[in-house]
Amino acid sequence: MRCAHPRLAAVSAGLDELGCKALLVLAWSAEDSDVAPFLPSPVHLGECLLVVPSGEEPRLAYLTLMERDEAAASGLALISSEDLEVLRWASEHPDPAPFLAKVMERALGRCGLTPGRIALAGHGPAGAIQGACSLLGGEGWTWVPGNALVLAARKRKEAFEVGAIREAAGATCDALRAVARLLAAAIPDAANGGELRLEGERLRVARLRAEVGRLFAERGLEQPRGNIIAPAEESGVPHSSGTPDRVLRAGESLVVDIFPHGRLWADCTRTFCVGTPPEPLARAHAAVRAALEEVSLRAAPGVRGWDLQEGVCLRFTAEGYPTPISEPGNTRGYVHNLGHGVGFDLHELPTFKRASGAEGVLREGDVFTLEPGLYDPAAGWGVRLEDLHHLAPGGLETLTPLPYDLDPQKW
Amino acid sequence: MRCAHPRLAAVSAGLDELGCKALLVLAWSAEDSDVAPFLPSPVHLGECLLVVPSGEEPRLAYLTLMERDEAAASGLALISSEDLEVLRWASEHPDPAPFLAKVMERALGRCGLTPGRIALAGHGPAGAIQGACSLLGGEGWTWVPGNALVLAARKRKEAFEVGAIREAAGATCDALRAVARLLAAAIPDAANGGELRLEGERLRVARLRAEVGRLFAERGLEQPRGNIIAPAEESGVPHSSGTPDRVLRAGESLVVDIFPHGRLWADCTRTFCVGTPPEPLARAHAAVRAALEEVSLRAAPGVRGWDLQEGVCLRFTAEGYPTPISEPGNTRGYVHNLGHGVGFDLHELPTFKRASGAEGVLREGDVFTLEPGLYDPAAGWGVRLEDLHHLAPGGLETLTPLPYDLDPQKW
Repeated sequence: MRCAHPRLAAVSAGLDELGCKALLVLAWSAEDSDVAPFLPSPVHLGECLLVVPSGEEPRLAYLTLMERDEAAASGLALISSEDLEVLRWASEHPDPAPFLAKVMERALGRCGLTPGRIALAGHGPAGAIQGACSLLGGEGWTWVPGNALVLAARKRKEAFEVGAIREAAGATCDALRAVARLLAAAIPDAANGGELRLEGERLRVARLRAEVGRLFAERGLEQPRGNIIAPAEESGVPHSSGTPDRVLRAGESLVVDIFPHGRLWADCTRTFCVGTPPEPLARAHAAVRAALEEVSLRAAPGVRGWDLQEGVCLRFTAEGYPTPISEPGNTRGYVHNLGHGVGFDLHELPTFKRASGAEGVLREGDVFTLEPGLYDPAAGWGVRLEDLHHLAPGGLETLTPLPYDLDPQKW
Repeated sequence: MRCAHPRLAAVSAGLDELGCKALLVLAWSAEDSDVAPFLPSPVHLGECLLVVPSGEEPRLAYLTLMERDEAAASGLALISSEDLEVLRWASEHPDPAPFLAKVMERALGRCGLTPGRIALAGHGPAGAIQGACSLLGGEGWTWVPGNALVLAARKRKEAFEVGAIREAAGATCDALRAVARLLAAAIPDAANGGELRLEGERLRVARLRAEVGRLFAERGLEQPRGNIIAPAEESGVPHSSGTPDRVLRAGESLVVDIFPHGRLWADCTRTFCVGTPPEPLARAHAAVRAALEEVSLRAAPGVRGWDLQEGVCLRFTAEGYPTPISEPGNTRGYVHNLGHGVGFDLHELPTFKRASGAEGVLREGDVFTLEPGLYDPAAGWGVRLEDLHHLAPGGLETLTPLPYDLDPQKW
C-alpha cells in the first residue's frame, strides 16, 4: 500500500532513491524533530523509535509501559515495550549500545523487516548510536544517513502546523511589544552616562528577559534555547546572548531576538535604541529595513534562498558594508545568512546557503525567516530585523507583523 | 600533564580503561549534558565539539564565528571555526555526514591526535553521526561508546553544581506550594460531581500548569520536558502528563510532578486530594509516605540503589501491593524504579537498577530522587511522593523540604 499523506509519500520516494527498505528514527522524546512531523497529535513520550517501512504507515515504538497511554494518544500504530522485550534486553545488556541494538532490531523486526539497508534519522547519544549501528552491522543491517530525508519531507508545513507556528509567533509579537513598552517607559539618567531607569531602578537585560519569560509562560511556551537580548558591544556579535546584569543605556543598540517553542518554533528579531541613535546605527538600521522590505517582496515560490542572499549582499556592498561574499569570514558589516526555515526545529529547511538543491528553493507551505543585519563589533553596535513568513497560496504571509522602529516610543 | 580536576581525572582513567587516546563529545548545544560538566561557566553556544585527550585539559571547538564571544566566555581553550575550516567543508561537503566527518577530524587533529581509538559521547543527529563515524573509520579512526564514561564522571556534583540544583529545587518547592494554595482555595461543587471551582471558574489542569510556568519564568527556569499534572485516571499511569482541559474534582488524586531546568535540573512530586480521599487512596498515600521516610533514612554513602528498591518492594508486597519484583511488568501497585540521579540530565546516575556496578552505588556528592509510588489505573488513582536529595558530607540533604499531605489545606 502506498501512502496518501504527502509527507509519507515524500519519505517513500526518498527511501526508494536511497535504496532503503525503511526509515528508522531514534529519539529520546516524541518532540524529536524527526518524530513530531509524523504525529497526528503531540504526546509526552520519552525514549521512542519510529519505523516507516517504504510505502507504509509509520509505527511508533515506546520503551516504557508507564507511557502506554501517552503513546496511544499519538494516533499511530504502536509497538509496545512488551513487543520490544525492553525488560529482557535491559537485564541482559546493561550497556547502552547493545541494549539499543536489541531494541532497534526488534522494532524493525516487528514491522516485518529483515536485515538490509535502512535510512537512519532522529537524535540521541552519539556513542550509543554509533555502537548499536556497528553491532547491527555484524547482523547484516546497513545504515544510510536519513536525517536529510526527514528534513526535506518536513519542509512544507501542513495547515495545522502553520497554525501552531502562527500561535507561537503571535506570542513572540506580544513579547516584543512588551519589551518596547518597558523601553518606552524607561528614563535615561544623564548624570550616569545615560543609564536607563525604570520605576526608580536601573534597567537591566534581566528585567526584559523576565518579562519575555513571564509572557511566554502564560501562553504555555518554553524557551529551551534561551533568547538574545544583547545591548551595544554584545549586539555587535550576532549570537551573543546578552549578560543579565548589564544596565541598558540611551543611544545604544539593543538586539532582541526571541525564539519560543510551543508545539513548533517561532523566531523574530527587532532592534531598539532609546533616545537619539548615533548616526552609523541610524544609517545601518535604515539599510537593514530597506533590505528586508526588498527581499520580502522578492520571496516567492520557485525563488532560491541563495539568490535572495546574493541580492542583499549586493545592496549592502553598494552601501559600503562588507558581506560574506565580498569578504568571506568578515565580522563587520553583514556577517550571516539571510534566513532559515522554522518549524519542528528552530533551524530547518528551506536553506539560504549557496550549496543547495531543492532544499534551497522556496515553495508554497514553507515557513522561514528573513533577517538581514549589520554589525560593527569594534564600534559596539548591531542591527538585525527578522520576520517570520509563511509562503501561503495567496502570497507571503508575515507571521510577525510588528513595527520596525528603533525608537520604542514609536511602537 | 595529568589533570588535577577530579572529573577530568575520572575521564582519563576511563579512557585508559577503554584503551582510548581521547574523548570526543559531539553536541548541538553547549547545554548538552556531556559538554556542560566540563564548562567552568555556562554559555549559549550552538553546534560544538569537545575534545579531551587523555590526561589533558578539554578543548572546545565552535562552528560559527558569530559565537566567538560566547565560546570565549566558557573559559576553556578553544578551537575556532577558522581552525576547523568550517566554511571550506560547508562548501565542499553540503551533506551533513561528510561535513561532520571533516569537522571531527579537524578538531581531533588540532589537539595533536592521529587516527586511533576514540571514545565518543555527546548527542546529535543519528544519521549524520553514524555516517561520519563510518567515513572516518576508513581513515583509521575507531570508535568506542563513551556516553557512559561521561555519565560516570559527572555522577558526583561539584559544590557550585549542587548550588544550581538547590536553586532550581527551591523554585520547584515554591511552585508546589503555589499549586497547593490554588487547590486549598478551590471549592467543590456538589451539584456537579464535586468539580472544583476557583474564583467562579471550573479549575482545570491548565490553570495549575500556567501557575507553575509563570513562577518558573520569574526565576529564569524552563520546562523543556514539560510537567505532569495528572488527575485520577491519568494519575494511575505514572508518565501520563495530564490533559489541560480536564476539570479537577474533589475526592480524586492529583499527581503533580515538576522538573524545571536552570543551569541544571531539579525534580519533585507531591500528590494532592481536595476533600475526603477514598480509603484506598488514603491507605496508599500513607504507605508511600512511610516507604519514602524509611528509604530516606537508609540512603547513605556505599548503599546500592537496588538494595533500597528491593526494600521498598518488600514493604509494599507485605502490604498487599504488587511490585516489579513480585510481578514483573505489573501496572497496578508499585510499578517503577525508586529513583534516579539528577543534574545535567533529568535522569542520570546514580541508578537504582538491579543490573548496575559502581554507577548504582550512592556516594557523597550524588544528587538523586527517591520516589516511591502506588497506582491503580483501573480504579483511577495514583500516588507518588518524590524528594530530591544531595548526599552531603554531613548526611542526606533534602533539597525539597515540603509537606507530604494529600490535603492542600494542611500545606
